[in-house]
Amino acid sequence: MKKLWGGRFSAQTEKTVEGFTESISFDSRLWKYDIAGSTAHVTMLGRQKIISKQEAALIIKGLNEIRAEIESGKFKFSQALEDVHMNIESALIKKLGPVGGKIHTARSRNDQVALDIRLYLRDQISEAIQLIKKLRKVFVSLAEKNIDTIMPGYTHLQRAQPVLLSHHLLAYFEMLGRDVARFEDCLGRVNVLPLGSAALAGTTLPIDRHYVAKLLKFPAVSENSIDAVSDRDFVAEFIASSSILMIHLSRLSEEFILWNSEEFKFIDLPDAFTTGSSIMPQKKNPDVLELTRGKTGRVYGNLMSILTIMKSLPLAYNRDMQEDKEPLFDTVDTVKACLGVLIEMLPLVRFNRKVMEKATAAGFLTATDLAEYLVKKGVPFRDAHSITGRVVKYCIDNNKKLTDMDLDELKQFSDLIGKDIFHYISVEVSVDGKKSYGGTSREKVLVRIRKIKS
Amino acid sequence: MKKLWGGRFSAQTEKTVEGFTESISFDSRLWKYDIAGSTAHVTMLGRQKIISKQEAALIIKGLNEIRAEIESGKFKFSQALEDVHMNIESALIKKLGPVGGKIHTARSRNDQVALDIRLYLRDQISEAIQLIKKLRKVFVSLAEKNIDTIMPGYTHLQRAQPVLLSHHLLAYFEMLGRDVARFEDCLGRVNVLPLGSAALAGTTLPIDRHYVAKLLKFPAVSENSIDAVSDRDFVAEFIASSSILMIHLSRLSEEFILWNSEEFKFIDLPDAFTTGSSIMPQKKNPDVLELTRGKTGRVYGNLMSILTIMKSLPLAYNRDMQEDKEPLFDTVDTVKACLGVLIEMLPLVRFNRKVMEKATAAGFLTATDLAEYLVKKGVPFRDAHSITGRVVKYCIDNNKKLTDMDLDELKQFSDLIGKDIFHYISVEVSVDGKKSYGGTSREKVLVRIRKIKS
Amino acid sequence: MKKLWGGRFSAQTEKTVEGFTESISFDSRLWKYDIAGSTAHVTMLGRQKIISKQEAALIIKGLNEIRAEIESGKFKFSQALEDVHMNIESALIKKLGPVGGKIHTARSRNDQVALDIRLYLRDQISEAIQLIKKLRKVFVSLAEKNIDTIMPGYTHLQRAQPVLLSHHLLAYFEMLGRDVARFEDCLGRVNVLPLGSAALAGTTLPIDRHYVAKLLKFPAVSENSIDAVSDRDFVAEFIASSSILMIHLSRLSEEFILWNSEEFKFIDLPDAFTTGSSIMPQKKNPDVLELTRGKTGRVYGNLMSILTIMKSLPLAYNRDMQEDKEPLFDTVDTVKACLGVLIEMLPLVRFNRKVMEKATAAGFLTATDLAEYLVKKGVPFRDAHSITGRVVKYCIDNNKKLTDMDLDELKQFSDLIGKDIFHYISVEVSVDGKKSYGGTSREKVLVRIRKIKS
Amino acid sequence: MKKLWGGRFSAQTEKTVEGFTESISFDSRLWKYDIAGSTAHVTMLGRQKIISKQEAALIIKGLNEIRAEIESGKFKFSQALEDVHMNIESALIKKLGPVGGKIHTARSRNDQVALDIRLYLRDQISEAIQLIKKLRKVFVSLAEKNIDTIMPGYTHLQRAQPVLLSHHLLAYFEMLGRDVARFEDCLGRVNVLPLGSAALAGTTLPIDRHYVAKLLKFPAVSENSIDAVSDRDFVAEFIASSSILMIHLSRLSEEFILWNSEEFKFIDLPDAFTTGSSIMPQKKNPDVLELTRGKTGRVYGNLMSILTIMKSLPLAYNRDMQEDKEPLFDTVDTVKACLGVLIEMLPLVRFNRKVMEKATAAGFLTATDLAEYLVKKGVPFRDAHSITGRVVKYCIDNNKKLTDMDLDELKQFSDLIGKDIFHYISVEVSVDGKKSYGGTSREKVLVRIRKIKS
Repeated sequence: MKKLWGGRFSAQTEKTVEGFTESISFDSRLWKYDIAGSTAHVTMLGRQKIISKQEAALIIKGLNEIRAEIESGKFKFSQALEDVHMNIESALIKKLGPVGGKIHTARSRNDQVALDIRLYLRDQISEAIQLIKKLRKVFVSLAEKNIDTIMPGYTHLQRAQPVLLSHHLLAYFEMLGRDVARFEDCLGRVNVLPLGSAALAGTTLPIDRHYVAKLLKFPAVSENSIDAVSDRDFVAEFIASSSILMIHLSRLSEEFILWNSEEFKFIDLPDAFTTGSSIMPQKKNPDVLELTRGKTGRVYGNLMSILTIMKSLPLAYNRDMQEDKEPLFDTVDTVKACLGVLIEMLPLVRFNRKVMEKATAAGFLTATDLAEYLVKKGVPFRDAHSITGRVVKYCIDNNKKLTDMDLDELKQFSDLIGKDIFHYISVEVSVDGKKSYGGTSREKVLVRIRKIKS
Repeated sequence: MKKLWGGRFSAQTEKTVEGFTESISFDSRLWKYDIAGSTAHVTMLGRQKIISKQEAALIIKGLNEIRAEIESGKFKFSQALEDVHMNIESALIKKLGPVGGKIHTARSRNDQVALDIRLYLRDQISEAIQLIKKLRKVFVSLAEKNIDTIMPGYTHLQRAQPVLLSHHLLAYFEMLGRDVARFEDCLGRVNVLPLGSAALAGTTLPIDRHYVAKLLKFPAVSENSIDAVSDRDFVAEFIASSSILMIHLSRLSEEFILWNSEEFKFIDLPDAFTTGSSIMPQKKNPDVLELTRGKTGRVYGNLMSILTIMKSLPLAYNRDMQEDKEPLFDTVDTVKACLGVLIEMLPLVRFNRKVMEKATAAGFLTATDLAEYLVKKGVPFRDAHSITGRVVKYCIDNNKKLTDMDLDELKQFSDLIGKDIFHYISVEVSVDGKKSYGGTSREKVLVRIRKIKS
Repeated sequence: MKKLWGGRFSAQTEKTVEGFTESISFDSRLWKYDIAGSTAHVTMLGRQKIISKQEAALIIKGLNEIRAEIESGKFKFSQALEDVHMNIESALIKKLGPVGGKIHTARSRNDQVALDIRLYLRDQISEAIQLIKKLRKVFVSLAEKNIDTIMPGYTHLQRAQPVLLSHHLLAYFEMLGRDVARFEDCLGRVNVLPLGSAALAGTTLPIDRHYVAKLLKFPAVSENSIDAVSDRDFVAEFIASSSILMIHLSRLSEEFILWNSEEFKFIDLPDAFTTGSSIMPQKKNPDVLELTRGKTGRVYGNLMSILTIMKSLPLAYNRDMQEDKEPLFDTVDTVKACLGVLIEMLPLVRFNRKVMEKATAAGFLTATDLAEYLVKKGVPFRDAHSITGRVVKYCIDNNKKLTDMDLDELKQFSDLIGKDIFHYISVEVSVDGKKSYGGTSREKVLVRIRKIKS
Repeated sequence: MKKLWGGRFSAQTEKTVEGFTESISFDSRLWKYDIAGSTAHVTMLGRQKIISKQEAALIIKGLNEIRAEIESGKFKFSQALEDVHMNIESALIKKLGPVGGKIHTARSRNDQVALDIRLYLRDQISEAIQLIKKLRKVFVSLAEKNIDTIMPGYTHLQRAQPVLLSHHLLAYFEMLGRDVARFEDCLGRVNVLPLGSAALAGTTLPIDRHYVAKLLKFPAVSENSIDAVSDRDFVAEFIASSSILMIHLSRLSEEFILWNSEEFKFIDLPDAFTTGSSIMPQKKNPDVLELTRGKTGRVYGNLMSILTIMKSLPLAYNRDMQEDKEPLFDTVDTVKACLGVLIEMLPLVRFNRKVMEKATAAGFLTATDLAEYLVKKGVPFRDAHSITGRVVKYCIDNNKKLTDMDLDELKQFSDLIGKDIFHYISVEVSVDGKKSYGGTSREKVLVRIRKIKS
């Protein structure tokens, strides 16, 4: 097929090359944004009298028809037409004759594709932010429902100190809050109009970029035409922010996979969100969580792709940049799918309060409280820590829990230990005592929830 | 839809979960290997009397029918059936009734999918090796055709010394040779039968794994059932080897993009392998090379994905591992596409001999020959280097080429310089003199070509 | 050596393990921040009467002495003491006796190290931002000095349209502006006090975290103790932002390496910023630029490290997180070194105006202007593009430049072409005509510079 | 300081640039290889009469003195001398006068550094292989010591089927076997002499590269001088192979961290290989394992660095390639340290046989055996699977283990179930019955161990 840019060429494009260079198989998903961008562009061209108002109206009508055809599934995208831009422009010319060719006045595919991706990503980031916010609400609601449940807090996957399950769940609320902030910051940098930069230098035609920006609701217009068509920072930044989000989702997945194991038994996953084994009939596998964890690798890979692609590219546009789309689209799809399935699944998880609480009883989880008790009696912390360490060792050697010790035994380690120690090393008192700001006491967790909901 | 593994479940799988966990949208490409593996497995089951010979025959007949249906495009893969394995088994059971359910005797999806990927990758690596070998031949043929063309050899993108274009092209031949070796080494590790490891522990049924290996032409059988279902080393190794191949293709692309620029003009790319601009009618863009260079990022990303996915996974199979397929498939497709298009394009590249040769004249490319000349006269290399440096500086200050200098001028720098120096600093003599093994002299390049072709 | 945490242990740490687990060899660089954090912490402990005012004063005096010892190089960091925290605390206890052990009251290494890294990174980001701003100024100053120089703008490394060198240089100004914004956004998320989260649950001692925040100039206090000790988002975000910065520096490096080549000759690099060859005396290598380009890989690698490390880690602190420091430190050092050397070098680069301008003459760079000329006469752009393509092909076939054509020849392609075409396709008029906002005309570039400087 | 290559330069190198471009701070570790390479080179130069035998002897004597000085710590490496090569050559010239400058005859730093890295890496890979082999032996010895211990085999971190601990441990033996093979394959590609390729083109001096190869024990000589100085495949391949090794070590670490948790309690780690908490006296943290897991990120990052650095570099040497060393050195150090500490630690791990065995009792781990039992009675596997699934569901609903069921209850699900079922669903019989090749039965595991040790 003769290309729209074919004037200068003596040979036609090789079939292999068409297949190798086409992007329509993946960039067709931009069609809605391509049409929206073209519509604004043409409106401006008409207003500026670069084309006549009637021509503008005709073209916009044509674009609307194409939109309808695509929506109804009637439109046939052709690989020979390379990309979404050429497919739509060709259809327009077919429909309107030469006047259709006026659509590409004062622009280039270089600024057009930059516009399309920005429009697309602007929508997608907004959707992702909505999903993260929903997931945050899920965590708040789970925290409220499980406000009193005590579980072991872990460091190094070793039981460390008793904490409230609600406090633990709210840790994810905080992480996701930073994700929202990062996505919003990124959105600000996406939200800049590149159109009107043309190939790289701007145009001699009297366009009005700020009017187009207004039509397309861009608060800002790019300042340098060369930069505008060379820039994919926003793609990299979005995938980087998504990678950090996936850190959080993978940590959650890992924890819930552990908690769902026979060994922890802290939670039961809903049947409808697990799958079975093809050979072991008893299995109920946490596939959703495993896949979420695995998909982290996918997003990291996408990040590495875009960073590698952009490295060392001379200005301005290079065809390498066509490779930006698949990692971007895949990241968008992955992030939204993971958020979506977690939003549905988490509210159905059953937390086994008793199992969790039993787990806090074993393992010297309040040893730190003994140390802090001694500190309150004036023992330097480092010595208090050392005394407590010896108490623990004694317990292990004698196969006792901390709470099994009697006062005399304890006093052997320090005279300062009084009867009230048994109060302080109870799990409940330990948790309730953590009243430092951001601490795990019921009081402070409720403060936080109230602040969140206000 | 009720799942084949659904016996133990009280609730049905959520629609969202089906969409999130399905793999049929990408693993359907394994169907051929799934059927081949099942056929061998069932043949063995019959031979071992684990199922009757008639049952085996029935199942194989059913599989053949399914193969025909898939080939003719009649087979409908269903997302509710999750993956290629369940789609095919379900079709079989629909066709044969309960006896179809005997196909999954003594195996699990865990060893089945490991088998399928290995069968698939074995084929793909072999194809990739064939393509690399073809591309190597292209380089030999280009080297032969351009055996005498002299060009500047570069370091730091600075003209360094004159070399033969043929020698430069053969550098790629050597790189690709290492790629073949790496792919072959990888192939050896792919070529191991995992089937018969079942879920992770092996089976109590009297299977004969070596017979299956023979049927499927595997030279080796995996030694440990837990390892066999947990292992995706071969995926990572293949993508790593592909990443190194892409280093080579990206370097070639970069060089040819440079050489195709107005500034270098060392080559003309064939029209049919370039594309035009949507706005600048004069452009003839090296898109194929740019995309190849860009696709390097894609393969690196895939590598990072699989490495991330596999990190820290406890044994044996985890669902995260389902995420191995898309990076693998994408790498296979990318590598084959890049090799394929280069094999077609490179023979059509026109090398502008005159431009290359003219470029060797400027720039003091034989300065090293002057230094080596002095070494032959007994000057320590470091001093010879220093003298030559001063000669070059003099030339630059006086706006002269090395060959513009007369003997008296040269003698000011060293008495040892004689009339014969003008012989040695000619570009042709410089090239021809590099007779060290692996050097750029015509003689040595021909030796290499002869050895390659023998 | 007996460890400060050794109370519970029956065996001493293996030498190999000490070597394997120590971090003092790299985290000693945090000493200044560790002392600053401890000083604020102890001040608060005294104010809250958790320790006595005198004790607080004693400890702060001790810390000041240690600071002086480290500054004067007298302090000996010991590997057996693991990390910077334990080295300083041990020194304090040695100095003060048991009271020194009060320093660690109501905190853990988990929140302490989080504090130290945040204090360190806060400083480093601020420094990096200053450096980027300096580099931006360099670009503005270069743009002003070269305001009128015309050069070829490139796409696909093909000469595309004439642009102003100043406009091209300002593209980097814009990129770096986004880097500043990203670093500032990141700084906001770094600037949160984690101290007081203790091991993971907070503390039962009556600390005042907001007072510590005030002392250390943190505008915010972390909201959740578990999150506070588990979070390394800010490390990942900083390295991700640095990776995007390195995209820009690598693109600049690539361009300047090209421009410095014999083939382009657009610039001369200052002798003092290039290096020579050990064998080829004529070489003047752009090492600084090559290394900057290469160091991009280093930063990308650091990003991949931290992302991999954090993936799937269960809450709260895990020792894996100790591996956050080296990629962070290396990124800080690399980014600052690259910025620093470019700030010094760029002002000394000589731009070869004549060579650049000559390069715009060849290559049909104003073909787009011919097309836009036709558009202004009413020809639909797509047809105008096609006509121009044919003109270019005619020129190539007849070995002519666009400006070599006479009017009659041109009219064969379109009747609408008039005599004034020769005005429009001159390089200067082409550049000056690009008056669209953000375009390359002198007028618009000056507008931008004025805005920047205002 | 005046540079050895300074002849052509009018300005001296900037201090900042010296600091930015130097490599002596990390490449000094190559000194031994640099001297070994130079010694062989000079021996050859003497033999070929390119320099006199006396000169060769003098230089070698000088090199030996320098070696002794470095070994005794007397040698001062200088940053102004850039790299290890220039430091040693300068010292030689200082010692011998101009004749020292003959050492660099017929070579360039480009081939010299390629030689040094290959010599270094050859040694390091050999050492790494020895360490992996030692670690493999540790696994065999642990397997032998724990030959009869039964534990739950896991998939999806769900208990799946009972397996032998020894079988599980031997899975790591198999993984590490592939690592050895990959390292050996890589070693073959490292073991090629690049020296004599000079800057990129070879030399006009009559060198004998095969003689140098013999002296340095290289089985092969590089075939193309341009490729020889451009190639860092072997660095990338080594780091890629190390990344795959780190997958294995991270999986092991993850498992042992889990097994060491209070919840699993499958193992006790030796005190001397764990560390304590600064605040929680009861903790005994698996730091060695956590750090090994974390260091995986470090190696992945190094891989990403070298791949990024090499992407798109035009031939031949570019200074970017100096950035190959730090990721390489860091990978070597990391891999060796991780292997070393595991070799010491693993033999001291205590496996809690009783806990493991108890864990196989719960959880329907022999459900697959019930299914296979039915298969042996003629039930199609898929139906057998379904029946078993229903049995399991019944057990769960009635809070029973499989072994709690009586025959009548079981018969409700299938008439084919006979009394012998209680034999088959015992954990021991289940394990012993997995007699398929590579299966977990004691018989097969012993077969494997015998084969390994033969």
